[in-house]
Amino acid sequence: MTYFRSSITSMTGYVPGEQPHGSKLIKLNTNENPYPCSPKVLAAIGHAIRAGLQKYPDPLATAFRQRAAEQLKVDPESILCGNGSDDILTIITRALVDPGDVVRYPNPSYVLYQTLAEIQGADCDVVNFEHDWSLGDKFTAANDRLRLAYLANPNSPSGTVLPPDDVARIADALPCPLLVDEAYADFAETNCLELVEQNDKIMVSRTLSKSYALAGLRFGFLVAQPQLIREFAKAKDSYNCDSLAIAGATAAIDDQSWFEQTRAAILATRIRLTDELSKLGFACIPSQANFVWCRHSDQAAETLYQQLKTSGVLVRYMNYPQWEDGLRITVGTDEQIDAILAILAGLL
Amino acid sequence: MTYFRSSITSMTGYVPGEQPHGSKLIKLNTNENPYPCSPKVLAAIGHAIRAGLQKYPDPLATAFRQRAAEQLKVDPESILCGNGSDDILTIITRALVDPGDVVRYPNPSYVLYQTLAEIQGADCDVVNFEHDWSLGDKFTAANDRLRLAYLANPNSPSGTVLPPDDVARIADALPCPLLVDEAYADFAETNCLELVEQNDKIMVSRTLSKSYALAGLRFGFLVAQPQLIREFAKAKDSYNCDSLAIAGATAAIDDQSWFEQTRAAILATRIRLTDELSKLGFACIPSQANFVWCRHSDQAAETLYQQLKTSGVLVRYMNYPQWEDGLRITVGTDEQIDAILAILAGLL
Repeated sequence: MTYFRSSITSMTGYVPGEQPHGSKLIKLNTNENPYPCSPKVLAAIGHAIRAGLQKYPDPLATAFRQRAAEQLKVDPESILCGNGSDDILTIITRALVDPGDVVRYPNPSYVLYQTLAEIQGADCDVVNFEHDWSLGDKFTAANDRLRLAYLANPNSPSGTVLPPDDVARIADALPCPLLVDEAYADFAETNCLELVEQNDKIMVSRTLSKSYALAGLRFGFLVAQPQLIREFAKAKDSYNCDSLAIAGATAAIDDQSWFEQTRAAILATRIRLTDELSKLGFACIPSQANFVWCRHSDQAAETLYQQLKTSGVLVRYMNYPQWEDGLRITVGTDEQIDAILAILAGLL
Repeated sequence: MTYFRSSITSMTGYVPGEQPHGSKLIKLNTNENPYPCSPKVLAAIGHAIRAGLQKYPDPLATAFRQRAAEQLKVDPESILCGNGSDDILTIITRALVDPGDVVRYPNPSYVLYQTLAEIQGADCDVVNFEHDWSLGDKFTAANDRLRLAYLANPNSPSGTVLPPDDVARIADALPCPLLVDEAYADFAETNCLELVEQNDKIMVSRTLSKSYALAGLRFGFLVAQPQLIREFAKAKDSYNCDSLAIAGATAAIDDQSWFEQTRAAILATRIRLTDELSKLGFACIPSQANFVWCRHSDQAAETLYQQLKTSGVLVRYMNYPQWEDGLRITVGTDEQIDAILAILAGLL
């Protein structure tokens, strides 16, 4: 006897990357920013604390919507704020997908899409990337039950990007809305924000976890046409973003000078990491995100993951169905990258 | 042409109480605590900020679970933490209720239960309270499609409480789990925490918004048997509680001396507010929460609401289907209560 929906009992649940708090491991497994956030974020949170925590937050995070709209040159009414972009993905899935419906996403990609579909009781249509990390016609194929397609762009674990023109074509061909998950777009050369105005099927989600170094604060947002935002808002918890997150996120998006500087540091380190890994015999995919996906020609990825962990460095080992396994290494500080490279040089 | 589930397009969405930030209104409409939270909460948040926000939080908020388990004398494995207790209510509804299923709740009560059912595509079986605010046999009637019953206890807007013995009897008679929403239980003489161990159908949700003065921080939790908690955890966002909320909530539940002192102040003011309203001709229901539900013998509740707002005091006007309307007045500071009583004396 169970009280639960069969969708829940039959699923295993999403397992996030290890979060060994308080340990001395060098943590390069969950694509966090290695740098502390902007001091202006801390000042804004301090100000919000002094204003008091006893009152409910603004349900729509209006301050953030206004400042983000100016920075990103979009309509504030086209922004919906969430408790991390996971909350945004949940809201979208709940609003669009009924049990028995179908969602589509590429493989290998963000494993959470499957979890969201499973919670909703939906079926998954998983389309493998081509070997050049493009998407073939299967991704836009007709399907009467298809209600939503997810596309991580840049993709994880590959760090590859589909250019906006390709995304626009995919959205046109799809019989359903396309959620372009731009968690890593701030590290890429292109993004799809401008497409939102042109096609109501294109929705773009962003997070402040990676590029703004605020994974601990939980703040993400959706950009979609205003008439869609109003419907999605019905499916969110009333007070989904707390007062400190709203204050911190608003200050973060306003401090573009911190953002540019940190981004430049990470991109520089990414080049160095990719070059040095290649010299050590790794095949690395050129990344437009804050991580590098790689495999070594001689050593099993899983063995290297374990050896690195024993040596005090945590990276992400991933083994995708119908694809190969590999290591996803977050671009850390230069010191952290020096450390992992030295350990790998010793191991290989 | 719409991309949305029909459940979403057909619903109006939950409308939270007005949140006029930055205004000079005396805000007695959303049952916030009028006192600032414990200074230990601020210290803990400050400590978490200095530790940095760039890393993901602990997915299970282990620190809070451990300290809350000690304070409440329950198993840490029986606690699930949420982004406010609204997140807990969402998780439970998503995990137990499929489209076409039925949920049951009393009227008048927390309007969000209807919204949660609507999002899920479930039908609502709404059972009116008896005139003494007890629940009749209809609340436990058999129904093949019934999957979940909600019971706010203390109830809003009435502030009335069903004693634990009655709740235990209701749960025994119900064919489905019973979520006892104890958002206001810290202001009551009894609660149902001890029932959780005895009956796996009884689940208790709590929030730190009211009694710990942390509505702005978003933190709530569920107490249920561990085998249920493990299933519910599958339906939550991985990182649903942020680092600052976890740190602040853990410090809050640990500072029972602040809690007892603030609770005593609110209970004393509640008695005074009830007495003075009665002298002004209001019929007040004896409250075990941090608000008072009342109607005046001569004046329409909606008129009084408007007049109070014009005079700078915001209370909640509510008009329930198949019930009467009334004013729900949050127990504020003594100064705030003096102010509203003076205005009402002038109006009546």
